[in-house]
Formats: sequence, C-alpha cells, structure tokens
Amino acid sequence: MVPFEMEVFASDIHAHPDAAILWRDERLLLLDQRLLPAEERYLELTSCAAAARAITDMVVRGAPALGVTAAYAVVLAARQRYAASPHGWRGEMAGDLDLLAAARPTAVNLGWAVARMRSLIATLDGGDPVPALLWEAERIHREDVASNRAMGAIGAALIERKTSVITHCNAGALATGGYGTALGVIRSAWSAGLIEQVFADETRPWLQGSRLTAWELAHDGIAVRIMTEGAAGRRMQQGGVDWVIVGSDRIAANGDVVNKIGTYNLAVLARHHDVRFMVAAPTSTIDLATATGAEIPIEQRDPSEVLCCGGSRQAAAGIDAWNPVFDVTPAELVDVIVTEKGAVRSPNRKKMAELMVK
Amino acid sequence: MVPFEMEVFASDIHAHPDAAILWRDERLLLLDQRLLPAEERYLELTSCAAAARAITDMVVRGAPALGVTAAYAVVLAARQRYAASPHGWRGEMAGDLDLLAAARPTAVNLGWAVARMRSLIATLDGGDPVPALLWEAERIHREDVASNRAMGAIGAALIERKTSVITHCNAGALATGGYGTALGVIRSAWSAGLIEQVFADETRPWLQGSRLTAWELAHDGIAVRIMTEGAAGRRMQQGGVDWVIVGSDRIAANGDVVNKIGTYNLAVLARHHDVRFMVAAPTSTIDLATATGAEIPIEQRDPSEVLCCGGSRQAAAGIDAWNPVFDVTPAELVDVIVTEKGAVRSPNRKKMAELMVK
Repeated sequence: MVPFEMEVFASDIHAHPDAAILWRDERLLLLDQRLLPAEERYLELTSCAAAARAITDMVVRGAPALGVTAAYAVVLAARQRYAASPHGWRGEMAGDLDLLAAARPTAVNLGWAVARMRSLIATLDGGDPVPALLWEAERIHREDVASNRAMGAIGAALIERKTSVITHCNAGALATGGYGTALGVIRSAWSAGLIEQVFADETRPWLQGSRLTAWELAHDGIAVRIMTEGAAGRRMQQGGVDWVIVGSDRIAANGDVVNKIGTYNLAVLARHHDVRFMVAAPTSTIDLATATGAEIPIEQRDPSEVLCCGGSRQAAAGIDAWNPVFDVTPAELVDVIVTEKGAVRSPNRKKMAELMVK
Repeated sequence: MVPFEMEVFASDIHAHPDAAILWRDERLLLLDQRLLPAEERYLELTSCAAAARAITDMVVRGAPALGVTAAYAVVLAARQRYAASPHGWRGEMAGDLDLLAAARPTAVNLGWAVARMRSLIATLDGGDPVPALLWEAERIHREDVASNRAMGAIGAALIERKTSVITHCNAGALATGGYGTALGVIRSAWSAGLIEQVFADETRPWLQGSRLTAWELAHDGIAVRIMTEGAAGRRMQQGGVDWVIVGSDRIAANGDVVNKIGTYNLAVLARHHDVRFMVAAPTSTIDLATATGAEIPIEQRDPSEVLCCGGSRQAAAGIDAWNPVFDVTPAELVDVIVTEKGAVRSPNRKKMAELMVK
C-alpha cells in the first residue's frame, strides 16, 4: 500500500457527524475518525491510492461510508488518469479500481460502489469523464443519506413503546453518507419520543462506541451512556431494554448478518433475554451472491490493536492476540432487517430475495 | 480513605506471579497489579489503613487475594495499636477492622478473613497479639494455596479431552495466595496435557486478562492468546473450546455466581454453544448467608475507568459510562462449581449446603 502522498488537514471546516465525507475543490475530504473525538480534523485526499490507504487505515470506516468514499475515489482516479492519458485512461484505471475494491475485504458496499462506477465508465464516450463520474458519486452519496432517512422511519415504527436500546460499534452518520443506519433508526425513534436511553458498547479494540457513537449522539442531544461489551448481559438482565439495534457490513442471501466483532454476542444475549434484535442496513449491504455468512471473508487485523489500548501496550512482550474484526450472526437470531425498501421480519433466503426485487 | 502514608517500593524482589503477597521484615509487600506487566514493583505497607487503601485502589485484587491481604493487614493493625496501647488495643482496632472489611463490597473473602482474625483476637490473652495473629494470617495464606492446588486437581479431572478453554479476568496466582483458582485448574490441566490453548478475555475496563492472566500464564509457558470480550461468541462458534473456566468473588447459597463483569455473557454464550461452564473458587467464597445473587452488592466504580483506555480519555467530554464491576450468573447456567472440598455439578441450594458441611 502506498503512503499518503499528502497528509494535509483542512483547517477551516467545522466537524459535523453528518459531514464525515465531503467533496470540495476537487478534493475528497474525510473527517479523520482515528482522531475523534479528541481532534476534529479533515484529511484532504487528491488520489485514489491515498483514498484506498485511508480506507485500509480506518480514517473512514463503516460499510456505507466505504461505498461513498470509494465512489469519490474513482473520480480522483479518473481525473489523474485522464490528465495523464486522455485516450488510455480507462485501461490505466483498472489497477486503481482493483486496489480500491481490495482496501478492506468484508464490507460489500465497497465493491458495490466500485462496480457501479465501473458500469458508468463503460458507457462513457470520449472526453473528460470526471463530470459524469462526480455526478454519479454525488448521487451515491445522496441516495445513501435518503436510504438512511427511510430506514430511520421504518425502524422507528417497529418500536412499540418507550425503551432503552443497546447499540454496538458505530453505525451512525460517521459510518455512512449521513444520518446513519442503526443510529438513523435511533435518531428517528428519539425524535418520536421512543428512546429512554442509548447504551453504547465501547467496542474494543477501536472503541468506535466510546469515540464515535457517543460523540455523534451527544452532538444531537440524544441520551447516551457507554458501557463495556462485558456489561451488556447484566444490562439486559436488569430490564428496560427492548431492542438491540446494529448496522451491518454485509448480509448474506439467507439473512446472516456480518457486523463488528461482538455483535453476535449481543444477538445471543438478546435472544436469551427476550430482547429484540434489529439490523439496519441499506440494500447495498445485501449480497445475494453469497449464500450464507460462513462464506463471507472475515478481516483479521493486527494483534497490536488488541494488545494496545489508548495507544499504550498493555500485554507483556511476546503475548499474541486473536483479532477478528467481524462476526456472523445467523439469520435465526435476527428479529428484523430494516432496509430503505422495507423491513424483513425473521429473515430467510426467500424473504431476502423478494426484498431485493421490490 | 487515608492516603498511603508511604509509597515505598521494594527494589530487591524479583516479581513472580506466585508471590504477589509477601510478608517480610514486619511489612506487607504487595506486587502492584496496577502497574503490571510494564513494571514489576512491590509496594511496602506498614499500616492497616494503607492496606485498606491498596485494596480499594486495586493494588491487589481477586477475592482470595483480598482475604489473604486483609489477614496480614489485621496483623499490621494489631502491631500499631498494641504499641500505642498495650491494654486498649483490642477496642482501638475495631475501626481498623471495619475499614478493612469495607474496602471493597463484593468479594466475601474480605469479610470472611477479617471475621476469622476477629475470632482469634477474641480468644487472645494479654501480651503481644502479633505473633498469634501473624501465625493465623500465614495459615490463611497457606490454606489458600493448598485449596487452589486441590481445586486444580479436581477441576482438571473434569476435562475429558484436550481442548482450548476461555477464561475471563484474572483468577490466577495473582488473584489468590498463589497458584490460582480458575488458572489453578488450567495449570493442572495444562500439566496433564489437556489444554490446547487458553483464550483470555482482555477484560475491560481494567484489562486484567491482557495485563495479568497473559503475563502469569506466559510466565509458566502455558499457551495463551488474548481476545476482546466481543470475540468470545465467534470463538465458541468456531469450535474447539469445550470449557469456560472462571473464578468468583462470591457464590450465593443457591449457587448463583458473582464474578467480574462479562462473566455472565460468557455463561449465556457457553450454554448457547454447548460449551461447559466451570467456576473454581474456595469455600471461603461461598456465602450461605446470602440466599441468591440478587442480594449481593455489586460494586459500581468510577465511569472514568471505562471512559479512559490505556490512561488516555477516549470519549468526548460530558459523556457518561455505566461501570458495574461484577455480574451475577444464575446457578442454572453453571455446569460445575469446583472447590477445595469437591465439585458441585448443576449447583443448587441443597448441594451447596451439603458441600459446606463436608
């Protein structure tokens, strides 16, 4: 992976959870999520390689956000390649697109967005491809926000009475084009007066719950409290929690849900406590080409992410860690999958296929 | 709580997991578990108040270790009070003993050890009480190690084939007078060739798994790998793990088990995956005076323990955390409780009462 050719931070933008991905002055600006909440800084990217590196290094994360970022990264690639080779740019971009699609393996939205941009590229005539590609990237971005708004309304309508909810990792505005998937449902439910309190798993090892979810919910004035993953069972045992609401990085054809490591624990705990389990994800996260969760590649990241905490090494030298980034929740533990096209209760292969042709 | 009157570290002792609590030259030496594994330093304590503070501040932790520490702390109190008042020391010690017993609320071993020392005090004639009390404290210490050795053998005998195991927090030599409860079983099973690999939950927020369990198992050459609490479900789902083995801070009369927050999650996950769940604890941890786990006080510690990670604040300013230190695993999720007096399968009130009169 190439290094960032420019570690430039934009200084004049006030950070907002709903604006984690921006296109401005022919640059892609990403709110650097590795630094939140201590620092609110946008990294300026001018090349596709730098965008791929930003994805791998988790400057931006969250399946829908990876899709939006990848779409803009294709624009950067096209500009660079077209400037260098007004006739051969298409062929020279092939490597850029492959690099981008491989930047992280699990979220299907990344490949989905690259494929959509690739389809458009195939239809373009001669001349500068940038305006058409930028238009498409911005459309992907807008559609994602619209999907989240739709999911918010559909998911909130499933919550029957005021309750506390548990969420995991960050499936919020920061993980998407804006508004959020799981946090979109929570935002809509909060507006409807249905949320007592949000309990956010801190979500080791990256602490997306502590750093990102708490930051963005507090930004909107939504009551949020952090807990360790270990506290979730006791939280459910004590009552007052009707729902677990999470996002997803990929949903298989049978409704198995891949999401941040620890999600499956919550699903088992929820079933044990008669707490309902909701997954909110756009249809771009659904991968009908993958039969079950067992076939989805689960990214393993460096053990140092677990062995270190808050930047300092915790375990003794020589100790190893097992660091799978995602887990698979079988469809039978999922009460409902909420998408922009509607909700699928007790998902299975047939219902998922029907949803996708709606 | 009074401050440590002397933050003195002994410089000439090589740290060993089996020697976390030492009595030397009329001083109580505690291996400072807040600093492990980065620093291996013994704090020298000369007063009961300092020992109580060391317990509250988690210089020493783990239910059996708190009992042993408290016994030695009573010796420190007696020496100080007897020197000041050779006739009135008994009455003047009352406050010391109360302070000590209240240093942390959940582990019953603390109160158990103080009560045992109090009984001895009641029988002492005139003269210096220190030799008799020191003899008793050392006996409590020796008995704890012997209990752990016995539990190790009893627990290991329950493991039928070579397997990986999951443990949580630190129920090891560091949490006891030596050898360990859950880790004592694991040590014995490892020696018998029954352990493939130990997966240690890192155990947020204090990271006892990463910092202590990994350190002490690696010290003994036992194959250990750290994982986040969130990874436990996936680990069980992937197979190869027959047992979860944990310690306990208090066991109620009906067999409900209080242990470090996150233990209950493991018990639910274990039942879901047909993994067996073993609790190893000396009978000093069993509290027949408490009918069920619901009656056991669960310590809540400062939210900052969760909001910070590795010494640095992770969550945005103004964010709150829920930080219960323990949880309650209902007896029906426990396959076996292993004590020095024997194993209790599928524990209930009757079986626990029978064990205690053995």
